[in-house]
Amino acid sequence: MLFHVEMDVRIPYSLSAEEVDALKQAERVRAMELQRSGAWRHLWRVAGRYANVSIFDVSGPPELHDILSRLPLFPFMEIRVTPLCRHPSSIRDDDQ
Amino acid sequence: MLFHVEMDVRIPYSLSAEEVDALKQAERVRAMELQRSGAWRHLWRVAGRYANVSIFDVSGPPELHDILSRLPLFPFMEIRVTPLCRHPSSIRDDDQ
Amino acid sequence: MLFHVEMDVRIPYSLSAEEVDALKQAERVRAMELQRSGAWRHLWRVAGRYANVSIFDVSGPPELHDILSRLPLFPFMEIRVTPLCRHPSSIRDDDQ
Amino acid sequence: MLFHVEMDVRIPYSLSAEEVDALKQAERVRAMELQRSGAWRHLWRVAGRYANVSIFDVSGPPELHDILSRLPLFPFMEIRVTPLCRHPSSIRDDDQ
Amino acid sequence: MLFHVEMDVRIPYSLSAEEVDALKQAERVRAMELQRSGAWRHLWRVAGRYANVSIFDVSGPPELHDILSRLPLFPFMEIRVTPLCRHPSSIRDDDQ
Amino acid sequence: MLFHVEMDVRIPYSLSAEEVDALKQAERVRAMELQRSGAWRHLWRVAGRYANVSIFDVSGPPELHDILSRLPLFPFMEIRVTPLCRHPSSIRDDDQ
Amino acid sequence: MLFHVEMDVRIPYSLSAEEVDALKQAERVRAMELQRSGAWRHLWRVAGRYANVSIFDVSGPPELHDILSRLPLFPFMEIRVTPLCRHPSSIRDDDQ
Amino acid sequence: MLFHVEMDVRIPYSLSAEEVDALKQAERVRAMELQRSGAWRHLWRVAGRYANVSIFDVSGPPELHDILSRLPLFPFMEIRVTPLCRHPSSIRDDDQ
Amino acid sequence: MLFHVEMDVRIPYSLSAEEVDALKQAERVRAMELQRSGAWRHLWRVAGRYANVSIFDVSGPPELHDILSRLPLFPFMEIRVTPLCRHPSSIRDDDQ
Amino acid sequence: MLFHVEMDVRIPYSLSAEEVDALKQAERVRAMELQRSGAWRHLWRVAGRYANVSIFDVSGPPELHDILSRLPLFPFMEIRVTPLCRHPSSIRDDDQ
Repeated sequence: MLFHVEMDVRIPYSLSAEEVDALKQAERVRAMELQRSGAWRHLWRVAGRYANVSIFDVSGPPELHDILSRLPLFPFMEIRVTPLCRHPSSIRDDDQ
Repeated sequence: MLFHVEMDVRIPYSLSAEEVDALKQAERVRAMELQRSGAWRHLWRVAGRYANVSIFDVSGPPELHDILSRLPLFPFMEIRVTPLCRHPSSIRDDDQ
Repeated sequence: MLFHVEMDVRIPYSLSAEEVDALKQAERVRAMELQRSGAWRHLWRVAGRYANVSIFDVSGPPELHDILSRLPLFPFMEIRVTPLCRHPSSIRDDDQ
Repeated sequence: MLFHVEMDVRIPYSLSAEEVDALKQAERVRAMELQRSGAWRHLWRVAGRYANVSIFDVSGPPELHDILSRLPLFPFMEIRVTPLCRHPSSIRDDDQ
Repeated sequence: MLFHVEMDVRIPYSLSAEEVDALKQAERVRAMELQRSGAWRHLWRVAGRYANVSIFDVSGPPELHDILSRLPLFPFMEIRVTPLCRHPSSIRDDDQ
Repeated sequence: MLFHVEMDVRIPYSLSAEEVDALKQAERVRAMELQRSGAWRHLWRVAGRYANVSIFDVSGPPELHDILSRLPLFPFMEIRVTPLCRHPSSIRDDDQ
Repeated sequence: MLFHVEMDVRIPYSLSAEEVDALKQAERVRAMELQRSGAWRHLWRVAGRYANVSIFDVSGPPELHDILSRLPLFPFMEIRVTPLCRHPSSIRDDDQ
Repeated sequence: MLFHVEMDVRIPYSLSAEEVDALKQAERVRAMELQRSGAWRHLWRVAGRYANVSIFDVSGPPELHDILSRLPLFPFMEIRVTPLCRHPSSIRDDDQ
Repeated sequence: MLFHVEMDVRIPYSLSAEEVDALKQAERVRAMELQRSGAWRHLWRVAGRYANVSIFDVSGPPELHDILSRLPLFPFMEIRVTPLCRHPSSIRDDDQ
Repeated sequence: MLFHVEMDVRIPYSLSAEEVDALKQAERVRAMELQRSGAWRHLWRVAGRYANVSIFDVSGPPELHDILSRLPLFPFMEIRVTPLCRHPSSIRDDDQ
């Protein structure tokens, strides 16, 4: 099932450039794994902001929380979750 | 290029059931046309609200405005537009 | 799976007392059915407001939307949905 | 009587990992005690956020404040309290 | 126990002057009864606004809701409830 | 004359426990003095938050500012002031 | 003593042009009287909005409420009141 | 001097199509006159909303208010005004 | 021309008492100069908050920005600017 | 195509004056380059705040994000992006 997730990243200035780079690299690796597994179905950058809009396809809120709370940047993100479903005017048979 | 669009629909109680049905049917027909043409790339219902989250793929803000402002329910919608772009951690080469 | 749902009811003054009573009675019957079926697991009144806080246990966002959007008072409600999951400090094995 | 309590946790980055772990462990022990005593009737994790939604069953605002203000993570929590009561459409005789 | 209650009144323009007068008069009578009974412990007008700040002393959220939801002006009020308790720096022994 | 004052306290984590204790103790002594003098007519704790709701009875905004700005915790408080007056439905002859 | 008052006017479209003109004319007459008496010390229009920023010099919240609540446009105004006092860096001896 | 003005238009549903058309046509004529005179220096449509972002070049707040408050759609607009000035990093010598 | 300016001051706790005193003293000197020159026409303290409400009389937004951005406390202030003009119901011939 | 961009700058107090000066100088150089290239079409200072209002003319959200996210002050800015298009009442044939 689908969840719309908006993530705003605010890394504190006290972290060193090395720590930030390591976090971003780890986040990138994890985001790619989750895209390949199909759980992170869409991932877009919000133009002009250190933020993304994502669509997750997971088995439910527990799996979603498990994924999000283990992201390397989770401690530095403000996250808003919105459950989605198929729209009655969609031309697709499922929630794609 | 991609735009994230959230639409909240608030139809005034003064409209008759026939007017509302006609508006919804016209909206549905138009939404399907735009999905088939590729401009309305994704359309999801927000669970529990008369609202949707959509992704539009258009040539720019003018085409986006032209499409949205001609939707039959446009006078009754609160709309928020956010420009998107490819995320550097996306596993895709384009903004899909 | 669980969803936290807050509903604020605002019935327009233009409805007659009969229409309001019929709506409230239909809402009440439906709410009781859904509680008995287990889908509407908890239903509490917010003290001092025409509003409730509810916990729904459904198969996913589609079933939740199906239930909420068919409530008799749906056109007059402002609804906020929050997906929940088991808390790691819960003394229960499931999400109860 | 029942109170709906939402807690958002924001632990400052300046705390050491050991301090954070000790706080979380103490919080967990206390949360379990309070659930067993019946005062913390429900405890759910909000999916995707370091936050919970809880239902407390206490003798009144004084006991509620006493409990919340002594939680180990209290200095790091943003808390919103909403008093609840039995809903007239509830199928239960009490406020469960 | 004590609850802090803020009430903002917005009477729709469609009501006749007679209806408004009758509502205000009924509200006044009821407010005085509740003050005399001790349930509505304090009642102040907010300077410059059709609003009040009140302190209620009731047996719990159910009695508070019962009182507020039966006020003649309830359908036209926006209400915010905040549970209070004795402050540790109070010079009084109870929550007065 | 009466002023409704809400105070939210946020003490920065960088203060030592000794500094915090000294501040709180000084605040407590001053709050008691002001209650005894009659200027701080009511003082209640907001359940679940490090905040209070107070009623001040002072000669005007200058005295109110003088009192509030000299509170030991003033640099760490977010304060909202609302002027009050006697409510026309009050059963008292003055603004009590 | 001084109070800063912001007033936003929203006259409902259902009023006739004659009613609106009569209200505005009555408001104007009353505003001038209050300026001449010294109670309404300053009155400025907010550029681009049907709103004003005012400074009242009154004996306290009761007189302020009495004045504001009797303004002809009071039922159609959103009002925010802020108590002021002399600034310690003012070059004047009083609160002018 | 320059002012940044955002206008959101909300025409009430109770107006007839003829009234709305006449208002929009009058607004259009006036907007063009003001652009030609140089007072309305820039006028852009906000994509997806019945709103515009404008830059006015006027002699001061009085002229700005005079212009805005006489626009045919003024009674139906929510307006926000922000004064601008030349940016120190601008490559232009004036505020263009 | 007139501008309504609200300034909220938030000095970070990391500044030493000497730095804060020097800043406040410099701010005070500058505020008095600007009042004497006529540019800072009114300056009032907001009761209960480290904030002021001011009226500036300047030649336009550039002079206003020049004045405000050079205030010693500018880096620590949250500022909101609102352009004002003479109110049609003012008893004065100018914008005083 | 055009995008309306608002930037609020908040440089943390922990940066040294040298670091801040270097950042501002680098920002200034880059802003001038982008204005000369035509991408940063307009740049205005918001009077009284460390903020600007800008109009960018770019090939789409990707180029806009590329430009904004490489600005030297980007880590210290709060940015809001609004896509614009030609207004139907504009006297110009394009979106100027």
